[in-house]
Formats: sequence, structure tokens, C-alpha cells
Amino acid sequence: MSHSQASEDILLREDKDGAVYLTLNRPDKFNTLSETMLAALQRELDAIAADPAVRCVVIGAKGRGFCAGHDLREMRENSDHSYYQALFRGCSRLMQSVVALPVPVIAKVQGMATAAGCQLVASCDLAIAARSASFAVSGINVGLFCSTPAVALSRNVSPKRAFDMLVSGQFIDAETALEWGLLSDVTADSDLETAVADKVEQILSKSPAAVRFGKSMFHPQREMALADAYDFAGNVMAENMLSPDAGEGIDAFLGKRKPVWALPGC
Amino acid sequence: MSHSQASEDILLREDKDGAVYLTLNRPDKFNTLSETMLAALQRELDAIAADPAVRCVVIGAKGRGFCAGHDLREMRENSDHSYYQALFRGCSRLMQSVVALPVPVIAKVQGMATAAGCQLVASCDLAIAARSASFAVSGINVGLFCSTPAVALSRNVSPKRAFDMLVSGQFIDAETALEWGLLSDVTADSDLETAVADKVEQILSKSPAAVRFGKSMFHPQREMALADAYDFAGNVMAENMLSPDAGEGIDAFLGKRKPVWALPGC
Amino acid sequence: MSHSQASEDILLREDKDGAVYLTLNRPDKFNTLSETMLAALQRELDAIAADPAVRCVVIGAKGRGFCAGHDLREMRENSDHSYYQALFRGCSRLMQSVVALPVPVIAKVQGMATAAGCQLVASCDLAIAARSASFAVSGINVGLFCSTPAVALSRNVSPKRAFDMLVSGQFIDAETALEWGLLSDVTADSDLETAVADKVEQILSKSPAAVRFGKSMFHPQREMALADAYDFAGNVMAENMLSPDAGEGIDAFLGKRKPVWALPGC
Repeated sequence: MSHSQASEDILLREDKDGAVYLTLNRPDKFNTLSETMLAALQRELDAIAADPAVRCVVIGAKGRGFCAGHDLREMRENSDHSYYQALFRGCSRLMQSVVALPVPVIAKVQGMATAAGCQLVASCDLAIAARSASFAVSGINVGLFCSTPAVALSRNVSPKRAFDMLVSGQFIDAETALEWGLLSDVTADSDLETAVADKVEQILSKSPAAVRFGKSMFHPQREMALADAYDFAGNVMAENMLSPDAGEGIDAFLGKRKPVWALPGC
Repeated sequence: MSHSQASEDILLREDKDGAVYLTLNRPDKFNTLSETMLAALQRELDAIAADPAVRCVVIGAKGRGFCAGHDLREMRENSDHSYYQALFRGCSRLMQSVVALPVPVIAKVQGMATAAGCQLVASCDLAIAARSASFAVSGINVGLFCSTPAVALSRNVSPKRAFDMLVSGQFIDAETALEWGLLSDVTADSDLETAVADKVEQILSKSPAAVRFGKSMFHPQREMALADAYDFAGNVMAENMLSPDAGEGIDAFLGKRKPVWALPGC
Repeated sequence: MSHSQASEDILLREDKDGAVYLTLNRPDKFNTLSETMLAALQRELDAIAADPAVRCVVIGAKGRGFCAGHDLREMRENSDHSYYQALFRGCSRLMQSVVALPVPVIAKVQGMATAAGCQLVASCDLAIAARSASFAVSGINVGLFCSTPAVALSRNVSPKRAFDMLVSGQFIDAETALEWGLLSDVTADSDLETAVADKVEQILSKSPAAVRFGKSMFHPQREMALADAYDFAGNVMAENMLSPDAGEGIDAFLGKRKPVWALPGC
């Protein structure tokens, strides 16, 4: 099917040892989140969410830019309210799918991440960037305040810093983004692949079940009152404790040996 | 009217190119938030909130102190519960008016900001301070824990740092306040005017409509669950997209020319 | 009673000038939160909560480790869901008792704080650590994601940093923990006692009533919407203003003399 074919072209997927590498592949367009790109990403995330064999996801990109946000040309070819509502609703659904995915999602940022591209970085659980990468929520420069990106940004970065980025449209560099909490790591440009591979390997060395328990709990509890968060997390942890991997892990620890985790599909 | 006259004296207002500069003008009293000062500030903020021509507000102060919080002498001249409730309710309303104002508010901090003065800094969208400025929530030293300032402070600064400031009453310097998220910028003392003027100019260079869309969305969405925040922000952004400035801005960007924004009242 | 005797052994309590020093005293077991330890801590916190003479609490530990979290051997001797639910519920109750205690609680961290031990540090109002101390939420290494610790951790540390700690199980050093907001202070190892004593002395120099008003307000308001938080904090502050210490403190300040606080039981 040509549509599916196009999707595959603009979004590459590689599976390796339980990790899925998604790569935005429209470098000449700075990997904008066009309707086609949004649909392709949503389709892959939905497939991953339903696949018990996946243990970790990396979202990367080709070219000088990581992602430049929405496709402005495409947006201007439409002009009705319901189109824009549907567009932002779809993009917001995508970002929430990243948050809700049952496994960790790592952003691998090799270049500029702007507007919804910066939001995508903010929405991932972890984000590793090359030192030369840069970040902005620059919609304000075209008369369109980055409102939906602000949702993700302000849940990672303190309010005055986030507001300043949003109202100024200015870029921050990777070191600043790390210091402010938008990233979990920064590496030399030449080490980006290795740093991401190491983080993936680290996650794959853990119990797949335990990682899924953790991801399912982490974001929802952040939105709860303290007592509710503890009730929820305590129930998840009791379930986790009953899983074979917790027994194996603790026995291995007490026996000073390496644990052998139950792998999905085995 | 003498009351109004007094108000004008203790609070200066200057309007310039859509920016409003409010200046606390009781330097000999460290610009305390006396009843008269609270009323004068509230009156100006209410007027600004209703004025479509205003695009940005700066709150500064004269003298060595930015603002020393409540007027302790005035507080001691009263002693009933309902007076204090009304006083704190009025001050809390003022702080929430800053947050709810439809345009960005910048604190320009040239000296000590203590108690409700520190709260005022925390309540602004942006805060630029001279390097010699300092910050404390020092009510604890007079037997009055800074409870209402804690509301604003703890929404900018991480909990252990905020609690330590509140229970110790100790000052932090401007560099620390910047690092902790209470400020958006620190400058040399001699550069404070220029730094604030640059930030105002930057905001005035953006689309007035887009800035208002952003300010109306930023703070409310922070209090919402993620899904609600995305619904809200998506609707605001769709409205923003239908405004003439978004069309103009995107067309200018695609045409590699400077955008011409719709100015209020033009 | 032998049970009580055992409790006293594993948890030391020293009272001095209104400060209570609780010391985890199972150094050979890295002060794990065994059922007995959890019960002993809960008993002391409940007693402290009911005692108007207490003004400050320090939680410290003996040996090379501060606290290694749950007792894994004990956990493996049980295997039913209701046991684990009760265990995590009890531990969560303990952590919430720290947050709800009517006086400030300081963690004094001399060594490794892992899993629920790291959670205990996160749950305290203040945390002072020796430079050689280290912190991890390492349950993931035994197949048990630190879900309840994540509740406390993610309310102190920004989400990507917290998630990285949880999914990697990696240690961070004390300087990093300070920078990320998990600690309020770091000292040379040899200065830990002095630094904690100074902080206790500072808190004891304040009005006991005002400190209690502050602690009762600080954490609950963080969970409220802004308007509700201001209503709540304003009411607490009006009550505080009516207490004798506020009058004394303000009068002393205006009269340039030292205040004399009303001490509990005097």
C-alpha cells in the first residue's frame, strides 16, 4: 500500500533484542510532524503498546534537525477550526501515547528540537542529546504560542524557565537543557550512539516485568495526591513482588549470583 | 482625592509602547505592602487586566529594598481575626491577579525581597534581578511563618530548598535564586535597566495576540491532569491558529520576510 | 517487654532541648526497614506527633549505611499478596507520618541510602548528608521497581532524573543529590554532626508555634490548586498572627530587641 509505504519511508523502524529504534526520516524537512509523520508515529506506538516482546523504545532522527514541530506549510493549507482542533488533538494524543507506553522511551537528540519537536523530547522518559543539539519552543516567532508543547515542557522545567523559553522563542543549548531537567544526559556528538546504546543495554539488563511495573506507575502517580499515590504505588509494588522476577532477583541477590529474568515470549 | 493622590505617590506608573512600568515608591519603608500599597497595586492590575493595549508589565521598586512584605507596624495596630483574614485574602488576591493577568509580568529586583516581597517575585512570570539583590521568607524570625509566600515559593523552588528558606528565614543571593528557579535572569547591578528593557523589547516584538493566548494557558494548565491540560492547551492553540497573526507569522516565515503583527487599537 | 526492648535496641531515641534524635541502630544489617524497624519508627513518630514539647526531629543511623530499604530476606520468607500489601501500606504510612508530623524532620545521612532508605530521605523536610553518602533506588536490580520510593523521589527530583535513577538503579553522590533537590545540604564527613546540630539550633531559636503552623501548611498546600492553596495558607497565617509569639516577635522586631518565645509546657 502506497500510504503505508510512504509511512515506512518517513519513519524507520529497527528491532533489536527487544529494543525498538524509531527514526524520523525526513531530514530535508527537519523531520516535521506532518499529518503523515504523526500518523506513522502513532501507528508504531500503538503496535509497540500491544507487543509484550518490546522492552524499550528509542526515538531518533536523521539529518541536522531532530524535529522542527508541526509542518507550517501544511497547516496554512487548511484554515478551519475543526482541522486545527483535530491536528492538535492528534499530536497531543501522540505525546500522551509516549507517556503511557508500557516501556521506557528514550529520545536520542542529534540536532535542533523545536516546538512540538521539543515537546517530544520532554514527553520521553529519558532524553540523551549530543552536545551540539539545541532546544526551543519557538512558535511565538510565527505568532503561534507553543501551547501544547508548554504542557510537556512545564512538567519538566521550572515555571520561569519554561515561560521564558515560550515567550522568547530563544534556543537553549544541550548543557542548559540538562541542567534544567529537559534532558537526562548530554554527550559529545561523536558519543551519542554509544551513550544511547549503553542506556538501552542497561534497561535490557533489568527484569522486563519490573520495568513495565515501574513505567505503568511512574507518570500516573505524579498527578495524584500523596495518599492516593502511595495507595496506587503500593498496590503496583505488591503485584511486582508476586512476579517470578522479584523472587528470582532477591534470591539471586541473597545468593550472590546473577539473576535470570523471565523474558517475554520465552 | 487625597487617597488616590497618596496611592499615586507610593506606586508610580509609566506607560511606554504597550509596556506598563509599575514602581513601588516607598523606599524609606522598604516598599512594604501596606494596605494602601496593596490597594494601589490591585487597582493598577485590575485596570491593566481590562486594557487591551497593554502588552507587558514590569514591577520594580525604588531604594535599597525591592519589597519587605507586609507592614508589621500596621499589622500590630490591629488584632482581630477578621482583619488578618481580610489582609491575607487581599494580598493573596493580588498575587493571583499577577498570575491571572492576561500579559506577562516581569519582576525587576534591585534589592532585598523578603516575605510577601519574595512572594511577589515568585508570582511574576519572569524575574530579573541585580546580582546584589537577595531573597528571604523571613517571617519566621518574627514568629509568623510565611505561609502565603510559601504557596508561590513552593511552586517555583523544590520543596527542601523552599522549606529550608521558610524555616530558617535565611537570605539567598541572586545567583542561588537563579539556580533554584526563583529568577529567570541575573545581571550586573549596573545592567539591570538594560536587561529588563531588552526583555520588554523582546516581548513587544512578538504578536500581542499570541502572547496573550500563551499567558492565558500557561498557569492554568499546570494545575490540571495531563489529559485535561492537553485538551485545554489544544483548544487555546486552535484559537490562536485562527487569529490573523498566526497566519501572518507563518506566511512571513515561509516567505522569509518579517511579520507585521496586528497591534491592539490599530 | 522483650519486643519493646528489641525495638529500643534497633532504634535509639535521645531527647535534648525539644529536639528528638532517632537513630537507626542495626548497622550490621545496613539499618533495613524490617517489620520490627518499621514498627519501632512508627511508634516513635506517633508518640512525637502527640507530644507538644517536641520541636524538631532528626533521623540518623549508625554504621556505614544510612538505610538499605526493606529487609529482602524477610520479604522472601513471605509470599502472599496480602502480606506485601500490608508491608508496603505500613511503609507508606510511615513515610506519610514523617510528612504529616507537626514539626520539621531532618534526615542526617552518613552513608548509603537505598530504596526505601532513599525514600525516607526524600520524605523528610530537610536532609543533610556527608559528602561520601550516596543514594539509589535500586530495587530494579532485584526485579522489584521502587514504586513507593518513586512517590517521594518524584516529589523532590525532576521527572527525567527520577526515572533514570529508578530504571537504572544507579547511585548518585551527595553533591548530585543536593543539586537535584533531594538534599538541602552537604558537608564534609567530619562536619556532619556539627552541621545538623547547627540546623537544629537554628530551628529551636524560632517560635515553636510558628514552626508548627508552617509545617502544618507547607505540604498540604502543595497538593492544592492555587486558589485553594491561598485560602488554606491565608487561614493558617491569620491563626498564626493571633498567637502570642507573632505579637511578641513583631514587637521585639519593632523595638529592636530579641523576642522571647512561648515554650511548650511553660
